[in-house]
Amino acid sequence: MATSRERTVPYEIPEDGSAPVRAGIPEHGRVPKYYWLKARIAPLLDELGEGGVLPTERELALRYEVSRETVRQALRELLLEGRLRRSGRGTVVAGPKMEQPLALASYTEGVRKQGRTPGRTLIGLERHPCPPALARELAIGAGESVWHLERVLFADDERVGLESTYIAVERVPRLDRDFEPDSSFYGYLREEMGLCLGDADERLETVLATPREALLIGTPPGLPMLLIHRASRDEEGRPLERVRLLYRGDRFSFSVRLEG
Amino acid sequence: MATSRERTVPYEIPEDGSAPVRAGIPEHGRVPKYYWLKARIAPLLDELGEGGVLPTERELALRYEVSRETVRQALRELLLEGRLRRSGRGTVVAGPKMEQPLALASYTEGVRKQGRTPGRTLIGLERHPCPPALARELAIGAGESVWHLERVLFADDERVGLESTYIAVERVPRLDRDFEPDSSFYGYLREEMGLCLGDADERLETVLATPREALLIGTPPGLPMLLIHRASRDEEGRPLERVRLLYRGDRFSFSVRLEG
Repeated sequence: MATSRERTVPYEIPEDGSAPVRAGIPEHGRVPKYYWLKARIAPLLDELGEGGVLPTERELALRYEVSRETVRQALRELLLEGRLRRSGRGTVVAGPKMEQPLALASYTEGVRKQGRTPGRTLIGLERHPCPPALARELAIGAGESVWHLERVLFADDERVGLESTYIAVERVPRLDRDFEPDSSFYGYLREEMGLCLGDADERLETVLATPREALLIGTPPGLPMLLIHRASRDEEGRPLERVRLLYRGDRFSFSVRLEG
Repeated sequence: MATSRERTVPYEIPEDGSAPVRAGIPEHGRVPKYYWLKARIAPLLDELGEGGVLPTERELALRYEVSRETVRQALRELLLEGRLRRSGRGTVVAGPKMEQPLALASYTEGVRKQGRTPGRTLIGLERHPCPPALARELAIGAGESVWHLERVLFADDERVGLESTYIAVERVPRLDRDFEPDSSFYGYLREEMGLCLGDADERLETVLATPREALLIGTPPGLPMLLIHRASRDEEGRPLERVRLLYRGDRFSFSVRLEG
């Protein structure tokens, strides 16, 4: 059983109370060099502030007396974590992650709440004969036509995610003619088709961006992403759509209110 | 506007309908070598089945006529994604991710639902003077005593996460004497202290394991983790605890039901 006597903290508790007390330093004290450097660079990022330009790899290697390789490893993690981002001006301090509510509200509404301008760009709208497993989920016959709508998600002019929607053609037969691909799909379902979402099951996991996804979202391949699998139903409880929502793990977090 | 004429699919839609239609291959066709190999190895994993032992790096390099480095990069991603795991017998095919409901139910209940045996090991129970930011979240005075309870989470005998709980000492003064550190904390609050959770705000993001976390959970440093920040309140709506729940991103996904 661990000790519980009152004592002063031999290490800092982060002000936001969110990080682990020992701030990532292994008990046995053997701190990997790149991590030691990461811990040194962190306060520098706070000084520079959002948008501040980081010194070059060479300057950092000299300043902290470590190898370029160690600098690269530390910066790589800070980039993957969204503390830094690449920009025309070099490597700059990134802003805080956007916080999306886990809700049936559309992406549009979620991003507006952050005071940012949502946008979408069409990658493709195609109809396919529905494969069996997807057909079961959409409660249609295998081989019946299904739309696949794929769009890149923007916040201001930053590409932040990829939305992939599967819905039976019989539900929205004129999707390719009536729907403005840069507008809200749920808005279209509601206003044009009179289809309202009843509820949805979502499963959230972290995955690595595939080369294609990295290309479309403009991230390094292998960047940890947040992937949401959504199966939604209409107000009659009939399956409506199957959605795959992929968000940059370095730019997004998701919030939810849980009732006891 | 993209074409929408009916046609046969030039690529396979995955049976579960969950993956992107083009299965990660960039349009322009320039597929990174390691990713090409990953796509080749995937069906092999299905053949081998859960627990099946993967051929050695050398054997894979020979079989697919690629460099050892390419094999290593492909296996690294498959390990990070939880498709593979290290074992005494070598690199083996991993089981599916565990699915935890996003709910106020304890970790214990969540893991039992998966048919696995939950467990916890105490890392430390210490009391500290509460720093200002955490004090505001717990609605106590800065400098008042706060417990920090830190435990490793197990599923069967596999280390899968790290739970870090902050709660005012005044709420549970005898925590260090009454509480069985391998039991359910919420069970203790309910049965010993008559404290029931009312609701909680959770924020979920993906982060990289710190060296200390990697050491405690037994993962490679830099493994993508799922981190849940929880701020819970009692039935009177009074702040109760601040929890940091860190789960292996390669072993867990989280599910939630959303109402319209």
